[in-house]
Amino acid sequence: MNTPLKNDRLLRALRRQATDTTPIWLMRQAGRYLPEYRAIRERAGSFMALAKNPHYACEVSLQPLVRFDLDAAILFSDILTLPDAMGLELFFTPGEGPQFARPLRKASDITALSVPDMDAELRYVMDAVQLIRRELNERVPLIGFAGSPWTLACYMIEGRSSHDFASALALCRNEPTLAHHLLEILASSVSHYLSAQAAAGAQALMIFDTWGGLLPQTAFDEFSLRYLRQILATLTSDRHARELPLILFAKGANWHLSKLATSGCTALGVDWTITLAQARHATANRVALQGNLDPAVMRAPPHIIRSQARSVLDSYGKHPGHIFNLGHGITPDVNPEHVAVLIDEVHRYGHTLRETWIESSQDFSP
Amino acid sequence: MNTPLKNDRLLRALRRQATDTTPIWLMRQAGRYLPEYRAIRERAGSFMALAKNPHYACEVSLQPLVRFDLDAAILFSDILTLPDAMGLELFFTPGEGPQFARPLRKASDITALSVPDMDAELRYVMDAVQLIRRELNERVPLIGFAGSPWTLACYMIEGRSSHDFASALALCRNEPTLAHHLLEILASSVSHYLSAQAAAGAQALMIFDTWGGLLPQTAFDEFSLRYLRQILATLTSDRHARELPLILFAKGANWHLSKLATSGCTALGVDWTITLAQARHATANRVALQGNLDPAVMRAPPHIIRSQARSVLDSYGKHPGHIFNLGHGITPDVNPEHVAVLIDEVHRYGHTLRETWIESSQDFSP
Repeated sequence: MNTPLKNDRLLRALRRQATDTTPIWLMRQAGRYLPEYRAIRERAGSFMALAKNPHYACEVSLQPLVRFDLDAAILFSDILTLPDAMGLELFFTPGEGPQFARPLRKASDITALSVPDMDAELRYVMDAVQLIRRELNERVPLIGFAGSPWTLACYMIEGRSSHDFASALALCRNEPTLAHHLLEILASSVSHYLSAQAAAGAQALMIFDTWGGLLPQTAFDEFSLRYLRQILATLTSDRHARELPLILFAKGANWHLSKLATSGCTALGVDWTITLAQARHATANRVALQGNLDPAVMRAPPHIIRSQARSVLDSYGKHPGHIFNLGHGITPDVNPEHVAVLIDEVHRYGHTLRETWIESSQDFSP
Repeated sequence: MNTPLKNDRLLRALRRQATDTTPIWLMRQAGRYLPEYRAIRERAGSFMALAKNPHYACEVSLQPLVRFDLDAAILFSDILTLPDAMGLELFFTPGEGPQFARPLRKASDITALSVPDMDAELRYVMDAVQLIRRELNERVPLIGFAGSPWTLACYMIEGRSSHDFASALALCRNEPTLAHHLLEILASSVSHYLSAQAAAGAQALMIFDTWGGLLPQTAFDEFSLRYLRQILATLTSDRHARELPLILFAKGANWHLSKLATSGCTALGVDWTITLAQARHATANRVALQGNLDPAVMRAPPHIIRSQARSVLDSYGKHPGHIFNLGHGITPDVNPEHVAVLIDEVHRYGHTLRETWIESSQDFSP
């Protein structure tokens, strides 16, 4: 159980300790761009059948590690499994994205909600975490994750994906007390969910606030950041999660980076709209940073993928604490060979960067 | 011709001079939320028939001023009339948004482009500007406008609206020389277009960079900001436009506000995702600010519209240089009575703010 990790780059970089090169993993690395994923997805019959079967979830989580020299595995699941366990019943229609059979339509739908029983309703997630840990055999660390309360609320109120989540925003504006009640229950549920994943074997945790950027002005602090802080405070004293690094990713919310950097997280995910140099400036070097190659670059020819990857590495600069990733999930149209090119360049150039870094440090040594 | 304006709040606020209350106008104030607009739109047969007939365009531009106590008129037109005049042929299909019959599909489509003849191809716009000025009879100033080179390029390459304008972004990444050629021609076209509107009688100008926020990282500087600066420099020495205030609105590009504030514009539009206090801080009080009520608030009950309007006014604070607006165009589902409520509150509370402002200034007088 306490065998040391063979590749601990991710955990070291998250703690802003020196590494031989920059670690890399990709959001949605276990996903539709891989033919072997599409094959097992077809065999399972539906996305939910895939996600709810721990053996399938384990196999899919490991697929990208069979192909690529990645520095982390991430649990194959969906942020909406948590509201599913709260009774909203998640399903996917091809080409339609996620939907809930029982979205929150009236006040009593919200007041009737409670924190789901992790052992009963989400046992399949914890079983998958245990299986993946066993199969990984300490090759790389396993990341567990959850959606942020605000982002979960967006889907639960809208019932499906949306470009503006107008119903969720209207609830915050018109019935703030009810919105806060929902967010409280979700914050508590997310804390329990991440704690259970830690207990099952996750070695790092991540929270996705995909829709934080939709909240106008100071509403981000009130309806998203407040609950992120609450979860982080809870996990700090949780016996399973307290030792684990936590990555917070609030897409489209770069304006709030400086506040997010003091939320208690270990690292911040950064989307592709700003440079890592700007993100480091905004966060005053308080946290590690994860990101932030423009996902569209993965469609470009290999030489452009390599040069853009170097730009991202250069922008972060010669300091520990960078975990390379895309600025958003990898898209299904990406050629898997391009992923191999990216990983190769990040590891190669990340190593070169460190050589010159050591040289230039020596220049200043007495 | 040189009769003074009866209501010069907008022009004074743009120059950051004192006004009796905060001026207000709304992006898309002449539009589908008004039944009288829908009636004339139906009579014209198509959006393009409406936009290309100066008498219709004049009538539609004045409709909101008949109903409401607005502090400015804006030319009724579309940012895509300029590429239409360049030969791309704009049309609208109900529910589909704008489309071009001849989008830019290959390199030769781009190299064949030239700056359109304002007198020949865009005479109808200048005729509308002259008519509106005459009909306004100096009641309020008239705003002319254009799209930014980058935003026009997005539509010209994609051929229609899009959520990510992936083709335009790919052109910048894969064929930057070709992209810059296109943007150069567009910058020159926009300068000529705004100059011609100024010559025809526009009293303030606005540039919409609706899609600037899509450009990753430093690409905003290279593919959008550079051409905005170029236009502003050209207009500074243009005999028609040089005296006119210019409002620049780069939606979703708040990260770039400090650079935009030194671009040479008079005012910056601000979207609804940050507070005006944050925007004032980012722009170091170098320019006037226009905005930024969340457009979704217009669907809320009147008492919420009033309180949210006061929040926007309070956030800007007790300084000259605020032009009230929404953070994006008004949506077709808004009840026109809500617009009257908003204007009333802005004028009423804007006046109150100034009273206490004078009092508090007197507190500090010797």
